[in-house]
Amino acid sequence: MNIRYGVIGTGALGGFYGGMLARAGREVHFLLRGDYEYVRENGLRIDSVGGDFRLPTVNAYADARAMPQCDVILVCLKTTENGKLPDMLRPLLRPGTVILLTQNGLGAEEDLAARLPEAEIAGGLAFICSQKKGPGHIRHLDYGKLDIGSYNVKSTGVLDRIVDDFLASKVPAELSEDLQFSRWRKLVWNVPFNGLTVVMNTTTDRLVSRDSSRHLVHEIMLEVIHGANRCGVGLKEPLAQKMIDMTREMIPYAPSMKLDYDNRRPMEIEYIYSRPVEAAARAGFDMPKVAMLANQLRFMGDQD
Amino acid sequence: MNIRYGVIGTGALGGFYGGMLARAGREVHFLLRGDYEYVRENGLRIDSVGGDFRLPTVNAYADARAMPQCDVILVCLKTTENGKLPDMLRPLLRPGTVILLTQNGLGAEEDLAARLPEAEIAGGLAFICSQKKGPGHIRHLDYGKLDIGSYNVKSTGVLDRIVDDFLASKVPAELSEDLQFSRWRKLVWNVPFNGLTVVMNTTTDRLVSRDSSRHLVHEIMLEVIHGANRCGVGLKEPLAQKMIDMTREMIPYAPSMKLDYDNRRPMEIEYIYSRPVEAAARAGFDMPKVAMLANQLRFMGDQD
Repeated sequence: MNIRYGVIGTGALGGFYGGMLARAGREVHFLLRGDYEYVRENGLRIDSVGGDFRLPTVNAYADARAMPQCDVILVCLKTTENGKLPDMLRPLLRPGTVILLTQNGLGAEEDLAARLPEAEIAGGLAFICSQKKGPGHIRHLDYGKLDIGSYNVKSTGVLDRIVDDFLASKVPAELSEDLQFSRWRKLVWNVPFNGLTVVMNTTTDRLVSRDSSRHLVHEIMLEVIHGANRCGVGLKEPLAQKMIDMTREMIPYAPSMKLDYDNRRPMEIEYIYSRPVEAAARAGFDMPKVAMLANQLRFMGDQD
Repeated sequence: MNIRYGVIGTGALGGFYGGMLARAGREVHFLLRGDYEYVRENGLRIDSVGGDFRLPTVNAYADARAMPQCDVILVCLKTTENGKLPDMLRPLLRPGTVILLTQNGLGAEEDLAARLPEAEIAGGLAFICSQKKGPGHIRHLDYGKLDIGSYNVKSTGVLDRIVDDFLASKVPAELSEDLQFSRWRKLVWNVPFNGLTVVMNTTTDRLVSRDSSRHLVHEIMLEVIHGANRCGVGLKEPLAQKMIDMTREMIPYAPSMKLDYDNRRPMEIEYIYSRPVEAAARAGFDMPKVAMLANQLRFMGDQD
């Protein structure tokens, strides 16, 4: 039986991943807000490094209560909107539905599990450069890999099937054996580059090309790695240099938090900064630089 | 016998303190650069909360070699120019001349003593809000106290006489028994407020009124206090809260480093940040937040 997908948050991430599944013939139902009318009329347009395409007709909804129950729900909202998530999800759930939280940071699965105790939850880590260009219009600039790991999914066979669907849709996807490892690993990049591009008003390429900032990025990465270690996640120190070298090869890039800040949207400070600092603190480890960056971001975004 | 004063750096600080001495009838010789012609023709103008005044004629020089030898030399240059200091000072020195380094940060006395081994050096800590408004025109906004402490002055009687001269000139002045204590104490304020107003593009009042930044200021202050403690300087933790409360009472203020940054002048990162971090590190104490702020400033000022 085919998997029926729901996508909550049809933006840079949800529009791309849901669009790729739909193009490959999977059944996908998209929840939209401001773009609903436009997408219902015009469908989705995806300009991708892997080839541009349009989906003239998609299953578009303005209200989750109008959607069918789904087998897998891709949550691609910003974590700043996670407070609304349980109400959006409830109409879509049936026993066995897997909620795939394709979001940055740490702790979103725990929060959702506390509010929806029956839910089966997985986490998705998207390694992608993509942007929303306009209503129903996604620009995919580079990369695209999706790592999927179970939080409390009863039968992991369903995650294998999701990975297979993505692979068949030309999305590089992989099963993560350890979701917390994958989440912390991604934080090693996200914590320095998201925050420092905002606070120092710059882009990733400048941060890795200057001595002062590259040194600071490296130190913050080590702090995240050591924090992960104390939380029982076995990241290794050389990962820091490896990620810096990788970033040197990337196109000059404004991470999502920089785009949020520049467009006066709330920044994902809670899940990318506060939660890792709190998790490390519970394990007896201090992350002074990450905590400092968090407070600088709270100040700059009027988010204290 | 009256003290003959030289002033090197006739700006917000040197113009005010030298001007106050000259108004009270002390012999003061001012070294100027860009303002030389103007000040030779028009003298100095000081708009002060304590009363505006003009000095129509002052002893103005464009070159230290034209100045007489002095008993006391007030160095009011930014520390970013200290490389030029020995050459500027040499023509003014006779045996017993006291060089009073009225500068921020840590280590300027050591550096100068290494380059001028015969010199007698003292340090000055200026607690003042003042700005240079134009050629020969100083605006004194608030405060003004000058603390003076010996670095290697052979007879401290001369420091008492300098203090007396300032008091007679209506400048609140005091002898510091422990220059390193005074320098670290001032760093407790300077380190957070100078750097954070630059990095977060704000003013002192906003930093103390918001939770995120006030918390960060407090943590940075504690780091400086603990660093001082490890260097043998007995600052106490409650000083941090006391300084935050004092800053709440101040007028909204852009510290000198913020003015330097906004006017694209080099920032005093070396003596206000690098040296305290190095001193604490030699004593086995890590200052991660101060070091992070230093690297952010180096990046923002193109000073790495």
